[in-house]
Formats: sequence, structure tokens, C-alpha cells
Amino acid sequence: MFQKVLVANRGEIAVRIIRALRELGITSVAVFSEADRYALHTELADEAICIGPAKGIDSYANPVAVLSAANVSGADAIHPGYGFLSERSDFASLCEKMNIKFIGPNSDIIRDMGNKQNARTTMREAGVPIVPGGKDLVENIEQARKIAEETGYPLMIKAADGGGGKGMRLASSPEELEPMFTQAQNETQSIYGNRHLYIERTIYPAKHIEVQILADEQGNVVHLGERDCSLQRNNQKVIEFAPSPTLSEETRNKLNQAAVDAAKAIGYTNAGTIEFLVDNDENFYFMEMNTRLQVEHPITEMVTGVDIVKAQIEIAAGQPLPFKQSDIELNGFAIECRLNAEDPYNHFQPSSGYIDRLFLPNGGMGLRVETTLYSNYTLPPFYDSMVAKIITHQPTREDAFKLMERALYEVTVEGLNTNIELLEALISHPEVQADNVHAKWLEEEFMPQWIEEVKEHSALNE
Amino acid sequence: MFQKVLVANRGEIAVRIIRALRELGITSVAVFSEADRYALHTELADEAICIGPAKGIDSYANPVAVLSAANVSGADAIHPGYGFLSERSDFASLCEKMNIKFIGPNSDIIRDMGNKQNARTTMREAGVPIVPGGKDLVENIEQARKIAEETGYPLMIKAADGGGGKGMRLASSPEELEPMFTQAQNETQSIYGNRHLYIERTIYPAKHIEVQILADEQGNVVHLGERDCSLQRNNQKVIEFAPSPTLSEETRNKLNQAAVDAAKAIGYTNAGTIEFLVDNDENFYFMEMNTRLQVEHPITEMVTGVDIVKAQIEIAAGQPLPFKQSDIELNGFAIECRLNAEDPYNHFQPSSGYIDRLFLPNGGMGLRVETTLYSNYTLPPFYDSMVAKIITHQPTREDAFKLMERALYEVTVEGLNTNIELLEALISHPEVQADNVHAKWLEEEFMPQWIEEVKEHSALNE
Repeated sequence: MFQKVLVANRGEIAVRIIRALRELGITSVAVFSEADRYALHTELADEAICIGPAKGIDSYANPVAVLSAANVSGADAIHPGYGFLSERSDFASLCEKMNIKFIGPNSDIIRDMGNKQNARTTMREAGVPIVPGGKDLVENIEQARKIAEETGYPLMIKAADGGGGKGMRLASSPEELEPMFTQAQNETQSIYGNRHLYIERTIYPAKHIEVQILADEQGNVVHLGERDCSLQRNNQKVIEFAPSPTLSEETRNKLNQAAVDAAKAIGYTNAGTIEFLVDNDENFYFMEMNTRLQVEHPITEMVTGVDIVKAQIEIAAGQPLPFKQSDIELNGFAIECRLNAEDPYNHFQPSSGYIDRLFLPNGGMGLRVETTLYSNYTLPPFYDSMVAKIITHQPTREDAFKLMERALYEVTVEGLNTNIELLEALISHPEVQADNVHAKWLEEEFMPQWIEEVKEHSALNE
Repeated sequence: MFQKVLVANRGEIAVRIIRALRELGITSVAVFSEADRYALHTELADEAICIGPAKGIDSYANPVAVLSAANVSGADAIHPGYGFLSERSDFASLCEKMNIKFIGPNSDIIRDMGNKQNARTTMREAGVPIVPGGKDLVENIEQARKIAEETGYPLMIKAADGGGGKGMRLASSPEELEPMFTQAQNETQSIYGNRHLYIERTIYPAKHIEVQILADEQGNVVHLGERDCSLQRNNQKVIEFAPSPTLSEETRNKLNQAAVDAAKAIGYTNAGTIEFLVDNDENFYFMEMNTRLQVEHPITEMVTGVDIVKAQIEIAAGQPLPFKQSDIELNGFAIECRLNAEDPYNHFQPSSGYIDRLFLPNGGMGLRVETTLYSNYTLPPFYDSMVAKIITHQPTREDAFKLMERALYEVTVEGLNTNIELLEALISHPEVQADNVHAKWLEEEFMPQWIEEVKEHSALNE
């Protein structure tokens, strides 16, 4: 086992890892930016090294600064957490060269999965369903019709050079194909000076469902079940659930098995997550693989009883998984709400500063809070706005919601704007409770109505 | 189900009950003394009623004040928590007369179990082993020899009118009986003016092991396994464990079954605990029955997954238990440490006042903290010194200890004296980790040595 591990991160995930190290009897080394001298991870670690100015690029995301700290402290491994250097294959490769164990998969796999087109190809070869269509250029309407027969409708015509919806058209039926294709061609021509288009099936409405994988360095791979992360805004997850309440047992098994097969096919090691889109008929399509710990890992921990962070460390130290797939049972239902320091009433502008008064829920059964907030802490403005994860676990989904409502009710953070009212509105929403939502529901259906209601309410109160 | 429940208590247990009520969708009514206007239970309840001056006897332990509040608020039930009115049969009886449901057993059972001699007789009749010997007066050495043959050695010769060790003699063997009996007779004669003595077997060394019972009003009784509460000081539990790590499976089953049989025999309802002394040969003897929720109930909740407070409320509302004995499985190992505001270096003098800085551990798997502390709170001096319960639950006993060490390491309470260093010393103690302790170990063996070490240490530092 490692003697000393450097935690190349900040915030709640650094604290989570430092605590796991302490529980495993391993010395922890925190790194901190000049803005994080009084941060909780700096306080809680056995050792702490300042690695540079506030900005992430100068400190937490700076490979040289982090590796220097690892060298100076004599750490024999680095846990990258999520974000920052966690998916940088160049960093993992440097660790390998310096003979410092990177707690994650090897650098080749990080690189391969980081390239989305490459990942798509690899997964297709591993037998995982991918979104029909793809990067082959479509030059005329005849070719378009032929590809559309394979992909099915609705489909999206996309500019190869495009982004941000430019040169993009949705065709919902064969009748719409020709006019939309022509429009897309014309727009692409006028914007990019070429007519490079491709066609991809649109999976809509779809749920975002991801499978947690653990793979040891002896070739054993298990899944820890799936999470539903369909409640998103701006590609940021807001609330997550484990397991999916609506997936049939048959699809659940197929999905989880596909993830295990894919991880085996690519020789994956350590913790990873394979993200899928799942449509209303329970067809599922590979989206991407995250070759690192996820923010929402605790809900999987709650329903499986497996400590994923400790498992990562043990795997990286060369230990085989202490359980087989058949040992893993899913118990109950877990929910995670992400408390962000941001203003939902003002375009989600991030909030920072001194916390006058703080109360985070505690007590009772099945409640867990991961946070770096403490009373009289000053939240720096330089980093991600997520400041706490509130996690509930109960035997039934209904009870997990009730416990979450109780927990959210208790949250008090004075001095910062937070999204607490958004979380409360979502958790008490009938469509959310009925799991009658999809990955675009929050943005397309919920937010416009909610903002309208809030405006009306404040107009009434004026 | 009840519409509104009054919580006739304060501190962490009032908060625990208020949260359970919220999760069940029941309106909660807090009562508070003038000293508890800013207490957490007052803040968190749906309604709060001031019931009198600071002193417990004038407020929380005043039946008339509490019942008036119940009347005014229209509560249809009262949860008494532990302490205060929870074992007052007169209070339970008043509730019954006023048609307000007392969440606990009926007043007759509270009265019967409150009288220790009565409880002993009842339990003997129910087939539960009791400490051999008893209240029959022993007038001469011939009678003493005869009774000693029944009780066995070591035995204690006690003055019927005695207390505090007066007129009391230990006889470890038949040879010691006559001289000790004579000494006890003489002492009793000189102190109390009579020679009223009785003989009781002494169970020493013994573990304090208690069984948690749940009984519904339809006659179903289950046990939730046992707790080991041998680490005590001054008859106050300091650290508790569930389940007992050393009890053989056979004794465990016998002990738990004896508790169920006893509860059935006396027609017990709601949650209750039967306390036993268990000697080194795993003989067990009834000590007393607590007809209420115990402080240490969370460790049982962690290993069984049963929410005891919710179960109490549901039972009182007339619902049958939703599980059978065979549905209850014990998973893993749980520990509770009681954080007290007291000074272990100064005769455990209680501490109170303004809390300058507070950090209580959170995050990670299997950690739970029950507390009423919050930052900038002023702890009033009028009540019990326990301010937080730190609970860990892990698959193995070893991991539960490691997690507790991590949790205790994080505790910061500036402004109050606490017993945190005592807890740390106990949790890291090899004899505690090996469960090589008995109910007098902390007082007789640990404390004198620890205090000596602390003195030496501070002398060295001066």
C-alpha cells in the first residue's frame, strides 16, 4: 500500500480523498493555491504545499507545479479527483515517467477516451451501441436519403465544421429531409465556405444514464449499477439518482453488461463511468466515457455500500477487487443535490465571499453531506460554484425524496447566493418525483416556467 | 396517522424526533424553556411554544406545562424522548386521560418497570435470568451459608437500608463468608441500628449488554440485536457498540430471545431496551428495562437499517410492524461516541457558554452526527452535558474504529471544554479495540492511568 498520497485537487473532492486516505492509514498531502490557504482540504491534510496563484491554470491545473509538490513531499501516488488534471493524458504520462502512481487508468486510455470520435469507434468495435450516423460526409440528397434510412428519424443534419447550432437542422420525418438538407447546405456554404455536412440520429427525448465501473489491474471488472443524471442545465448535472427508477430490469442488465464488456475490451483499469443516452423505448447509445471519479459517485456508494474512493486507491496499489459482480447488491434509492453558490434569478451568476451564517443538515438515517463550507469561511471566486453535495439514501424512492425535502429545508447559507430554491422546487416537482423527465426537460420545460412563477410571485409581493 | 405531534424534550433527541416527523409529513410542535429560545429544536420545529423557566423541573420535566402546550397546539400525540418525562408513569397516565397519545408503552408498564424490585420479580416470572440472591433478609451465618450455596461466589453482603457501599462486604470464596458476614453485621448495627442484611451474587467482571425491542400494539415483538455499553463512567455510557463483538452466536440468540420473551410476557408496546450484565462465561442477568428511546439507539439503526424513531411513531399510531424477525439482518458494525461539554481534567465539571468556532466531522461513507450545536451558539448551563453523538458504521469493526478516529480528529469546538481527548484516547486504546473491557474498566483501570499520563505530559511541557 502507498505510504503517502498527494491529492491534486481542491474543494469537496479533495476533502473526500484526504478523509479516505486517513481512514486507510495513508499520509495525505494537500496542494493549495494562494486563494485556498484557509480551505478545508488545506486544513485537514497531514501535509499541505502551496503550489501557486489562485487561478487553476497556475496551480491545480499546472502539471509541473503539482509534480514538483509530489517530488518535494515524497508522495508515491497522486489522486487527481475530478476536473483539473484528472483527464489530462499528458499529466498521467508524466506521472508514469516519474514513477509516481497516477490513481486512475493509464495515460493511453485517458487519451483514447478523451478523443470523442476515437472513443465512439472504440466502443462500436467493443459492441456497444452508438448513436446511428456519423462523420461520413453527405454530399447530396440521394446520399442523405440512404443514410437516413439507416439512422432513422428524428435526425440532425450537422455542419462538419459547425458548433453552437450553426449549419444544424432537425428533420423529424422523411418529408422534412430534403428542405432541411438544402437549408443546412446553404447555411454551411455561407458560413464555412463549404458544404461539409453529416447526419446523426437525434435521441430525443432521452435520459442521461451512466454506469459506474470498477476495474482492477488483474483484469477483473465489475459495474456498480447505473445513475440517472437527466436533470441538467447547461450540460451541468443538478440532481442525480441511483438506480434509475424507470429502466426495465432487462435493459438495466443489458446496459450494465455493455459497460463491463466495453471496459474489458479496452483494458480499462480503476474507476470509470460510461455515459449513455436512453430513449423512451429503452434503446441506449454510448455518449462518452469519463476516465475518472465522478462528482455524483456517492449515490452509487450509498446503494452498493462500496467506497469508490478507497477502491480507487486500493486498485492503484495493485490490490485485486475484494468482491465479484455477484457480491454487489443494490439496496434502496439514493439522491444527490448539488448546492451551488450561484444566483438562479440572475443568469446563474457565480457568488462568492464571506459566509455570515451556515447551517447544513445533519442527523437522522441515510443523510450525507459532502462540503468544504464552514462557518466564517470566505469562499474564493476562482473556482467551480459547487459548494456542497447533499445525499440521501432510503429503502424507497419516496422516502429518499422526503428525506431530501427535510434536508434542503434545513440549509442556511447567509452571505452567498445559492441555488437552494431551485433544488427545492425540483425535488418537490411532480414530474421529477414521477421520473417523467428527460435530459432537456430542466432547460426546456422547467426553467422558463419556474422563472415566470418566481417573477409573478415577487411582483405580487412588491 | 397523527396530524401533529408535540416533542416534550430538548437537545439532540428533540431535533432527531422533529426531523423524523418532518420526513413522515407530520406537523411538529417544539416546547422550549426560556434558556432555549435559540436552540436548534426551537428553530427546526413547525411550531414552538415556551413552557417556562430554564430549569428542567419548571419546563421540560413539568407535566402540566407540557400538557398545556399540547392542548393549546392541538397535538394528538406526545413524544417524550429520553430523560425528563419519558419514564414518568404519572405523565403517561395523564396523557391517556386527556386522550393524547403518549408515544411509548402504557403507563402501567412504565410504573411496573420503574420499580426495580418489581421489574426483577416480573422478569423472573417471565423466565429471564436475574442476579441470584435477593431481598430476603439473612439473619445468621447458617442462613447465609445456605443462600450462598444458591447464589455462588463472589457474592456481596449488603445492608437492606444501605447505600454508597456502607454495610457492604464482598465474599470471594466460602472461606471469606463468615468473617465478612460478621463485619457487615457489625457495621450495619452501628450505622443503621439493625442487622438487616441480604446476599446477592456479584457479577464481576461483566459487560453491560442491552437488547433493543420493538413491539407493536397488535402483539408482534421483534428484537433489533444487542448493544455493548460497557464503557461507562459514573453510570453514564461514554462509547457504545453494536453488535457485541465477543458474544458467541449461541449466547447472542439466547439473550435476544430472552428479551423478546420478556417483552411478550409483560405485554410491552413501542420501543424498549432490556439491559443485562454478561459475565466472562456468557451467563447473563437482567438488570433493568428502559421503557423509552435510548441515547444510543442510532448504532442499532445503522446495523439494522430500521429507523427506530419513525417506528415508535408508527407503532403509537396503531400501525403493525412492517417486518418480521426474520426480515431483520445485522449488517456491519457501528460505534457511538458521546461528545460532552465537560472538563475531564477537572472532575468532569460541566462546561457552557459561547461557541467561538465549531467544526463537526461530515462526509464520507457511514458517518452520522447527531447534535444541536451550531456556530455562534451559546450553550446554556442548565441541562445534560452531552452535545453531540458521533456515529460510525462500516462493514468491519476495524473500519468502524478507523472511521471514528478520523471523525474525532476533525472535531473542533472552541469556547467549551469537551471530552474529545478522552474519546480519542479510548477509541485508540488496544484494550477497547480488542473488546477486552468490562463495565468497571473505564473507572477502575483506564481513568486513573490516563489522568496520570496527562499529568506527566503537562508536567513535561511546563
